Amino acid sequence: MAGGASEPGRSVLDRALAVLGSFSDERPEQTLGQIVAATGLAAATVHRLVAELVAWGALERPGRGRYRIGIRLWQIGALAPLARDLRDAALPFLQDLGAVTGQVVHLVVLDGHQALFLERLPGHAEVTVRSRVGRRMPAHASGPGKVLLAYAPPAFVAEVVARGLPRMAAGTITDPHELAVALAEVRRAGYCLSRDEMTDGAASVAAPIIGPSGDVVASVSVVVPSSTENLQPLVPAVRLTAAAVGRALIPGVDVPLSARNS
Amino acid sequence: MAGGASEPGRSVLDRALAVLGSFSDERPEQTLGQIVAATGLAAATVHRLVAELVAWGALERPGRGRYRIGIRLWQIGALAPLARDLRDAALPFLQDLGAVTGQVVHLVVLDGHQALFLERLPGHAEVTVRSRVGRRMPAHASGPGKVLLAYAPPAFVAEVVARGLPRMAAGTITDPHELAVALAEVRRAGYCLSRDEMTDGAASVAAPIIGPSGDVVASVSVVVPSSTENLQPLVPAVRLTAAAVGRALIPGVDVPLSARNS
Repeated sequence: MAGGASEPGRSVLDRALAVLGSFSDERPEQTLGQIVAATGLAAATVHRLVAELVAWGALERPGRGRYRIGIRLWQIGALAPLARDLRDAALPFLQDLGAVTGQVVHLVVLDGHQALFLERLPGHAEVTVRSRVGRRMPAHASGPGKVLLAYAPPAFVAEVVARGLPRMAAGTITDPHELAVALAEVRRAGYCLSRDEMTDGAASVAAPIIGPSGDVVASVSVVVPSSTENLQPLVPAVRLTAAAVGRALIPGVDVPLSARNS
Repeated sequence: MAGGASEPGRSVLDRALAVLGSFSDERPEQTLGQIVAATGLAAATVHRLVAELVAWGALERPGRGRYRIGIRLWQIGALAPLARDLRDAALPFLQDLGAVTGQVVHLVVLDGHQALFLERLPGHAEVTVRSRVGRRMPAHASGPGKVLLAYAPPAFVAEVVARGLPRMAAGTITDPHELAVALAEVRRAGYCLSRDEMTDGAASVAAPIIGPSGDVVASVSVVVPSSTENLQPLVPAVRLTAAAVGRALIPGVDVPLSARNS
């Protein structure tokens, strides 16, 4: 985000977007100084941009010198088709899966080379997991992420591997060959079992959601304690949920995941 | 949104925000020509801004000449504290309410002078309602909206009345005195019953969510067919849900609704 950000050729809009992009799940609230440090922009520039963003409602100022994303930007963002159409179609079935299993349920898509949590429904006796709506995680390090990689073009998977396979937990697959074997197994079985890959202590069952075009557009997963010996009883429930969501997607609703990944 | 938008003194950022703000629930996808018409900006200006917004991911181009909000903007918007903290706290209890009643459940806040749907969980035998996550509706024309008005400062309610009380359905309260009586009744009872106010055929039971500061920060409602003769059996469930959400809100999490409304 930093690095050359203050280059003279950079446009005003580009600088303003860098200010917005400096907010993250780890830093949802920032001071002017933090925004300056994160963007590499001049303090006077940040001061002026932030004032305009606050005036419009893209940022809010909860206290003096502190800034966070405003409800108006949330509202505009909620118009994104993935958030609207895919989530709207999926939510009833995700709720049913949550009600039947009592566990955390995730709806995940690829965003760039990472897995993005589009929805997360809380479970009852909840496993502590790292997920949060809007959070991105390495795609190789979770069941729903591996499902998306399994059906992505090989060149895309090669790019993910080239960027590195960081260890997130004791069971994370960090070896490219091991990942290739795992993805082939997902394609063969049509689902994915994971243990201690994203979070120590959590296991998951994940399955692909196939859109009207025949492409995998998202994945759904249910999270259980990794002490659960047999994950197989959850497989039909997760696969049926994924199938139901796929059937509910309206043909012609263009969920441009395969396009972005190719 | 239009009107004076192309005035020379308008900043680049202001113009770019006008482009983003031209997208709405009614127009989630627009052509360049529609954006030009909605913003009042010059076509060349819109062309250049849109290209920058697409490059950053704030907009996506699903087909030639068509634009919509991109997943990156959704992700940044999801960092807004109302979306994160309030929704995270509320979701388990909203799910329980949905499971127990089988009906549509809403989480609503005030945004400006309107009611904003922060969450909407689908019901089983679903009543057709106008709600959608991120959609704004006149605050006087629904149960959760009236609950928020009932606990808002009188000056704010006066502003809402001054802006007009449009009829949305057969039962919408359009008379200022009648509205004042209804709001007083909400304060007395601690909940709100509505019939055919936002949508013909839909009734609702709504209750206030009181934050750690003692202020009403949001409202929760359940929607049933307006043919339901007795709404009273739903009242304890909705009020208990609102109370549970209020207890789950972390003290110090600043939900700046009362500030914005005062």
